[in-house]
Amino acid sequence: MADPRLPQTIRWVGDEGGRLRALDQTRLPESVEEVELTSVAEVADAIRRLVVRGAPLIGIAAAYGMAVAARDLPDGSSPEEARAALRAARALLLAARPTAVNLRYALERADAAVAGAPDSPAALRRALLTEARAIHEEDRQACVAMARNARPLVRDGGTYLTHCNAGALATGGIGTALGVFHLAAAEGCRLTVYADETRPLLQGSRLTAFELALSGIDVVLQCDSAAAGLLAGGTVEGVFVGADRIAGNGDTANKLGTFPLAIAARRAGVPFFVVAPGSTFDLRLPNGRDIPIEERAADEVLLLSGRLLAPDGVRVRNPAFDVTPAELITAIVTERGVVRPVTREAIAAMLGLSL
Amino acid sequence: MADPRLPQTIRWVGDEGGRLRALDQTRLPESVEEVELTSVAEVADAIRRLVVRGAPLIGIAAAYGMAVAARDLPDGSSPEEARAALRAARALLLAARPTAVNLRYALERADAAVAGAPDSPAALRRALLTEARAIHEEDRQACVAMARNARPLVRDGGTYLTHCNAGALATGGIGTALGVFHLAAAEGCRLTVYADETRPLLQGSRLTAFELALSGIDVVLQCDSAAAGLLAGGTVEGVFVGADRIAGNGDTANKLGTFPLAIAARRAGVPFFVVAPGSTFDLRLPNGRDIPIEERAADEVLLLSGRLLAPDGVRVRNPAFDVTPAELITAIVTERGVVRPVTREAIAAMLGLSL
Repeated sequence: MADPRLPQTIRWVGDEGGRLRALDQTRLPESVEEVELTSVAEVADAIRRLVVRGAPLIGIAAAYGMAVAARDLPDGSSPEEARAALRAARALLLAARPTAVNLRYALERADAAVAGAPDSPAALRRALLTEARAIHEEDRQACVAMARNARPLVRDGGTYLTHCNAGALATGGIGTALGVFHLAAAEGCRLTVYADETRPLLQGSRLTAFELALSGIDVVLQCDSAAAGLLAGGTVEGVFVGADRIAGNGDTANKLGTFPLAIAARRAGVPFFVVAPGSTFDLRLPNGRDIPIEERAADEVLLLSGRLLAPDGVRVRNPAFDVTPAELITAIVTERGVVRPVTREAIAAMLGLSL
Repeated sequence: MADPRLPQTIRWVGDEGGRLRALDQTRLPESVEEVELTSVAEVADAIRRLVVRGAPLIGIAAAYGMAVAARDLPDGSSPEEARAALRAARALLLAARPTAVNLRYALERADAAVAGAPDSPAALRRALLTEARAIHEEDRQACVAMARNARPLVRDGGTYLTHCNAGALATGGIGTALGVFHLAAAEGCRLTVYADETRPLLQGSRLTAFELALSGIDVVLQCDSAAAGLLAGGTVEGVFVGADRIAGNGDTANKLGTFPLAIAARRAGVPFFVVAPGSTFDLRLPNGRDIPIEERAADEVLLLSGRLLAPDGVRVRNPAFDVTPAELITAIVTERGVVRPVTREAIAAMLGLSL
């Protein structure tokens, strides 16, 4: 299933003493280049700077970050020293980005691995690398399952719209929202996918256009503002986006621009699909109001390739995400099934929980 | 009224034998620089390349373009030669950009001036420069009148949102949508104005942020996609935009991104105001469906400062405008008054026409 043409976003080379390497997504599409993340501080920095990005991939990177921290424990560390070092690593990773809940999910999995392991550095190394690899592999499989679950929503010859990059580059597999396009294309479907460029960091232009072209999909790039008119024109059959955090009622935080897209889709009568793994749900939050929204640096809006795009000193508002109310979402597709309509009860049932 | 701190967008220096000079808006905000437009071909090119832009200013520039064409008539031209040269100039200017109807309006005013003038080159020069100056001066006065008519919609301490640049830089005066902010600021009001950056050409970042700061207005720049969340948050009291063409029923073509903004404002219950002079109305079109929407070059989306933002060869959709249905517009403010609610009858009455 995993298309060999799709790039691998992150990989651990070797055993517990090995190395963590990641595709540097800030350099795409000009340069397809791996960097080594040599310390937990470098992993946190790579998450912060969007060297690795996309909610599922952030989780995977954080899990490997804990394996890096364990690898770097001095062999003679006492149990107290080892656990203190891992706690510090965890705090560093957790603080890297606030919105994607997959980060916390992965770190809680790492916590459990640490809790269940003997105290020696060697055992902690083994436990944390095993857990990171498990999270990575589960995400790879979840991507395939999401694509299969979303497959009936996409037809040969169809035209779709997506925002940001919720693809192979955002995950450990073939992607969330883009996975179904890769799957359908592999089955021989001809698809046209409009990709919003996604300001300010242009993940649509740099990543989605690059990634979908690898699967032979006809990609059309447009400014984010162009989506509403396209939807009103009636050529788009469905909108597919990923998610960074989904509250208990289905309110969904995703890349800035998802909410206006959902409003425009609703007005145009176009179905709006969120595709995300179970690790993206945060049932501690009853609704989207409490999802923390990361405010990023003004320079993301003001500078491009070092050129100042606006008068020096102008104030900037730069939220990285917005929240789409559940009522605007036609369905949420997960690896476990499709939630449609989107209700608190249906989400709990899909996740196998009682409310 | 015209704030001396605001830049002059275009000016004719001297008599009928004089020169046309324009502020090169492609260089703002880095460099505030005038260029001379030495021929009608250069005027058309300046309109096409957005050296001069904004619907009212495009009209003024086209009128001066006809004065340039007349200036360049050989002294010994026969009446047939002169009129043929002016027809060619008119065709060149009319083809420069398709959406802003002010271009056609100004050229029809020039037609009437030519029709009413003696056949000699000297008389045509005088008639066309007089008409261009009249159109320029009328626009300057219309801007003041629009600002006064919109003044009750803005309060001291208020927070507003605008898109693209509908200011002094888009007109021959203090602007359309931004004129009311300049006026209120001159009266001592403290205003906060959120400016959408306005992809792809960033007129919000480059021009609106620059222009509003000249009047001491607190400007906050944001990505276009950030507007919907801001509106939903309840801090914005009104959205003010300009227009490139308004159909008979009030459907309004304006810069790409206006339509999604209007949808988001409606959902949030925030009033949405279009501010435009009478020359922007096109009563030949019953509704917005027939407004020609300019599709501009892919490179506007793909390139910035020569850097390629997406994979080479990707397809691009780049409409420069979208159409906002009249039902989403709270009011249209013109120099003659305020149309509210926006109906065909109210528009005709405001323009002093019977349907």
